[in-house]
Amino acid sequence: MGLIVQKYGGSSVGTVDRIKRVADIIARNKPPEHRLIVVVSAMQGETDRLLHLAQEFSPLPDQRELDMLLSTGERVTIALLAIALQERGIAARSFTGRQVGIVTDEAHTNARIEEVQTERLEQALADEIVPIVAGFQGINRHSDVTTLGRGGSDITAIALAAALGADRCDIYTDVDGVYTADPNVVPSARKISRISYEEMVEMASLGAKVLQARSVIFAMKYQVPVRVLSSFNHPVGDRQDGTLVTKEGQEMEQESVSGVTYDRNQAKITLVGVPDQPGIAAKIFSAIARERVVVDMIIQNVGQAGFTDLSFTMPRGDAVRAKMALKKPMEEMNIQDMVVLDHIAKVSIVGTGMRSHSGVAAKMFSCLAEEAINIMMISTSEIKISCVIDAKYTELAVRTLHETFDLAREKGSKSSPAKAVAKKGHKKKSE
Amino acid sequence: MGLIVQKYGGSSVGTVDRIKRVADIIARNKPPEHRLIVVVSAMQGETDRLLHLAQEFSPLPDQRELDMLLSTGERVTIALLAIALQERGIAARSFTGRQVGIVTDEAHTNARIEEVQTERLEQALADEIVPIVAGFQGINRHSDVTTLGRGGSDITAIALAAALGADRCDIYTDVDGVYTADPNVVPSARKISRISYEEMVEMASLGAKVLQARSVIFAMKYQVPVRVLSSFNHPVGDRQDGTLVTKEGQEMEQESVSGVTYDRNQAKITLVGVPDQPGIAAKIFSAIARERVVVDMIIQNVGQAGFTDLSFTMPRGDAVRAKMALKKPMEEMNIQDMVVLDHIAKVSIVGTGMRSHSGVAAKMFSCLAEEAINIMMISTSEIKISCVIDAKYTELAVRTLHETFDLAREKGSKSSPAKAVAKKGHKKKSE
Repeated sequence: MGLIVQKYGGSSVGTVDRIKRVADIIARNKPPEHRLIVVVSAMQGETDRLLHLAQEFSPLPDQRELDMLLSTGERVTIALLAIALQERGIAARSFTGRQVGIVTDEAHTNARIEEVQTERLEQALADEIVPIVAGFQGINRHSDVTTLGRGGSDITAIALAAALGADRCDIYTDVDGVYTADPNVVPSARKISRISYEEMVEMASLGAKVLQARSVIFAMKYQVPVRVLSSFNHPVGDRQDGTLVTKEGQEMEQESVSGVTYDRNQAKITLVGVPDQPGIAAKIFSAIARERVVVDMIIQNVGQAGFTDLSFTMPRGDAVRAKMALKKPMEEMNIQDMVVLDHIAKVSIVGTGMRSHSGVAAKMFSCLAEEAINIMMISTSEIKISCVIDAKYTELAVRTLHETFDLAREKGSKSSPAKAVAKKGHKKKSE
Repeated sequence: MGLIVQKYGGSSVGTVDRIKRVADIIARNKPPEHRLIVVVSAMQGETDRLLHLAQEFSPLPDQRELDMLLSTGERVTIALLAIALQERGIAARSFTGRQVGIVTDEAHTNARIEEVQTERLEQALADEIVPIVAGFQGINRHSDVTTLGRGGSDITAIALAAALGADRCDIYTDVDGVYTADPNVVPSARKISRISYEEMVEMASLGAKVLQARSVIFAMKYQVPVRVLSSFNHPVGDRQDGTLVTKEGQEMEQESVSGVTYDRNQAKITLVGVPDQPGIAAKIFSAIARERVVVDMIIQNVGQAGFTDLSFTMPRGDAVRAKMALKKPMEEMNIQDMVVLDHIAKVSIVGTGMRSHSGVAAKMFSCLAEEAINIMMISTSEIKISCVIDAKYTELAVRTLHETFDLAREKGSKSSPAKAVAKKGHKKKSE
């Protein structure tokens, strides 16, 4: 008999009524051919509430104590959901991270799972109980509670799926899948029915918010098929397909580009007139790294007369720290000027098919040029191309790229193009 | 080096500011000659909030799930207090019931402690850490969270004090000690500086709310001296004495009566015209026990012509259930009538000295008679006498008994009568 792990995020269990709705979904759709494990997050807003409470006592609360505090949020949800399911006649039982044997390292507030001791979960499943598991938490070797950081509940669900050899991990969230682009920006954006781990990692890293890149990398490592579904427009009693994130298949290869993403949370610093000497870049980026700023793209222009310009991007919230960190090195190295731009955006196209399709980059650049959008920086990998542009062109760039790469048209084996076009009703271009 | 266990109740940690105040008390009064363990309850109102949340999902939530839910309240407080203490330079660390090795039986929501595995606490103390322990919770042999029921945090504190051989367990609450009577009713009521476990058990059972009888019995069993103190009018930087609950000492013997208590939460049922046959009482009280109503006082009047009247008292909230339970037995046994009185009160005097003082009961009855207060029922033990009276005379009875037994005057070895009288300033009678 198979096994499915379902995970419901904070917005899916954000209120009493939403928890009841989740209980209804589980009660009416419990896969008859599968056993079931449910992982839940804290009720939306609860983690923030607890964090603010802690900050009333200290601007920088101890991380072990934060974990003790924050881990209570998920415990509330598991108990409530277990009660709601029991009320619906399901033999559900709540389990903490410790009780399902999630052993982590010592890194409080951002722990990594080292081991999953599955005995208790296996016993519960053998007893035909539906375990309701607290996401986001584990226990370290000292028997102290740890939390797993951002996306932690997804990590819990994927880890349990991996440890127990589940058939699939279903991530219920507030959207019904992964789209070719943000549907708020591109009305013709199409839900992707299947996407490879590699593409999903890139899309998550490049701005698609539905999954954390970390979770996808984790799923890829253990080859756990992950399905993204909505707990909001889930028709109770019916099934939805969502998006399946899985290993690359034959049909995926056909497409050059799978999706367009954007990230407006970016800033760019340019150092002007950097002496072109060995070791300078190392000094600059060491200074920034000491402030724990993670630099994304880096470009060094070929300069004249022994000077170069150096540009790099980072999350916008880190720009001030980076600027401060550079003051002293700039003086020491006689760097002429520093220019900070924070109204920039990164627009990316992602697709495993790029590997076998030439001319994708050229097509992207011409497409942006046709709209007179200036490209400030470019970064590429095997399966993505990112361009930094002025933030005011973000929507225009995303829409025009979505159209150029014909993403609204459904391809692959699952559905005919005609159907997808008819469903959306505003696809103009055809190839 | 000695060891003190301090416990702070829900009202003492009910708000951010109160938690800060507790942190100040601990930081400034940390006994230099003692090591310290702090036990805390959930923030006032939190347990009720969680309980109501559970009841949104089920009128009768599963008790294991309730424990999972309710035990989060104390975890929030321990983390916050630990953070607050660290901010004040104290090496504090939070511990759950499980982490301090509180092993209980299986009775969810009302578990009994079976064992305390003290290794981790001893290690913390050896490392000069102040452990901040979640009260009210433990873990059973299946590694499931349990809670200890009413007064559970006091039980935790006393259990830790017993297991570690602490010198004393200090219970911080919203009153500064145990009084000879409720100071709201009797303005001249005097704080008792020392009281025996036996007297305190009676006083707690008979209506004094400062400690649960169960906690005092537990302290008595393990001979843990308990001190009751206030976290509200505690002069930071100074020491207060509170009330010490301890084993009976020489000086206590001198007093016949230590305190007056009352309990208005009482109801009385009288069965009129009960056939005077063997086995009738057993049938009646079995029927009531099946509804889990705990009967307090029972009086059977000698009747005429083969009939008797039977009266008994119970907590007022149980009267309706008791009445329902008796309907069928009444019919079966041809009992003539049932009269329910719910405007009654139980007024009691407590004192170990009663054993060696004759005439205490007579003095109590005459005192009430002088005020024309009718006594409906009487119940006595070695160290207490309780009278059931009409509830409207409660305050009058308590005041007049307090005066008759001269409780405002300080006796024993600690302080002179003159001082006590002068302090209160409204003591009239002297013997």
